[in-house]
Amino acid sequence: MNWRALFKPSAKYSILALLVVGIVIGVVGYFATQQTLHATSTDAFCMSCHSNHSLKNEVLASAHGGGKAGVTVQCQDCHLPHGPVDYLIKKIIVSKDLYGFLTIDGFNTQAWLDENRKEQADKALAYFRGNDSANCQHCHTRIYENQPETMKPMAVRMHTNNFKKDPETRKTCVDCHKGVAHPYPKG
Amino acid sequence: MNWRALFKPSAKYSILALLVVGIVIGVVGYFATQQTLHATSTDAFCMSCHSNHSLKNEVLASAHGGGKAGVTVQCQDCHLPHGPVDYLIKKIIVSKDLYGFLTIDGFNTQAWLDENRKEQADKALAYFRGNDSANCQHCHTRIYENQPETMKPMAVRMHTNNFKKDPETRKTCVDCHKGVAHPYPKG
Repeated sequence: MNWRALFKPSAKYSILALLVVGIVIGVVGYFATQQTLHATSTDAFCMSCHSNHSLKNEVLASAHGGGKAGVTVQCQDCHLPHGPVDYLIKKIIVSKDLYGFLTIDGFNTQAWLDENRKEQADKALAYFRGNDSANCQHCHTRIYENQPETMKPMAVRMHTNNFKKDPETRKTCVDCHKGVAHPYPKG
Repeated sequence: MNWRALFKPSAKYSILALLVVGIVIGVVGYFATQQTLHATSTDAFCMSCHSNHSLKNEVLASAHGGGKAGVTVQCQDCHLPHGPVDYLIKKIIVSKDLYGFLTIDGFNTQAWLDENRKEQADKALAYFRGNDSANCQHCHTRIYENQPETMKPMAVRMHTNNFKKDPETRKTCVDCHKGVAHPYPKG
């Protein structure tokens, strides 16, 4: 293959033909990339590195996976942004975790998780605080406004009052609701 | 612009340059198309045609939108497939509803909805039956296996027995669970 020819006009192929080939590469490349990102965002993929950690069982025992209707929240529902650009950025950032998996001795052991749970939990909390718990609010849409009648009056009052505060001083979901999927370590 | 030139080789632009332009068109075009599909899948967009229908309020009064945790299920969570290809096909199919919106007299009235509720509900049920209530099972993942302890024993027994049946004779979610988001008309 004469790669130098790529840098010269084609004597044979029309402009349209080359554009169409480029468009097909762009569309197929985009689809393949997106499906790869989605495939590496599933619980099954997360558990391939966290296979010996109790994280999944913790969710299944929590309100986010142990409710009587059999609904389970997926890792990505909380830990990955729902908007396309933020999602892509976060996926690029967390790819460094692969390096951690390969280099941290005993990473995939329950002992390591128990030892590092606070640090890991605080990293997750920092992420949630960074976008005002947007992942929580993605599903819990009736927290601040139009609360359902089934919500406890005290909860309605507290959330309504919190919502009235200035966004700068307003609490975010995880300020009060910790340990709702994984136990939050005391101390 | 001399459009005929498109059908001839370029004397000026390299093969690589034209391929790259095509790739950019493909990627930007894919992203713009996908965001348009997503933007026309939101509750707000659905309600732009169904603005006078009680559909949204029905969901907010149901288990799928009226629970005490303030979680609301979106129209697309039930009515659009979650897989990329099925999603695209369904979006193309339902675009015909725009024609219905523009041509059916009095479509956007509660009277029309009440009159046509059974027919519309049965169309939705046919969709759900067509993919074994895949949309329900997308969130309710612990119905057939690994049921939570909080699930009622009778429910565990019924779902487990149903799951043992041959897929051909097995009931699907909506065979038993009707009216869980919108009231299902009697008779």
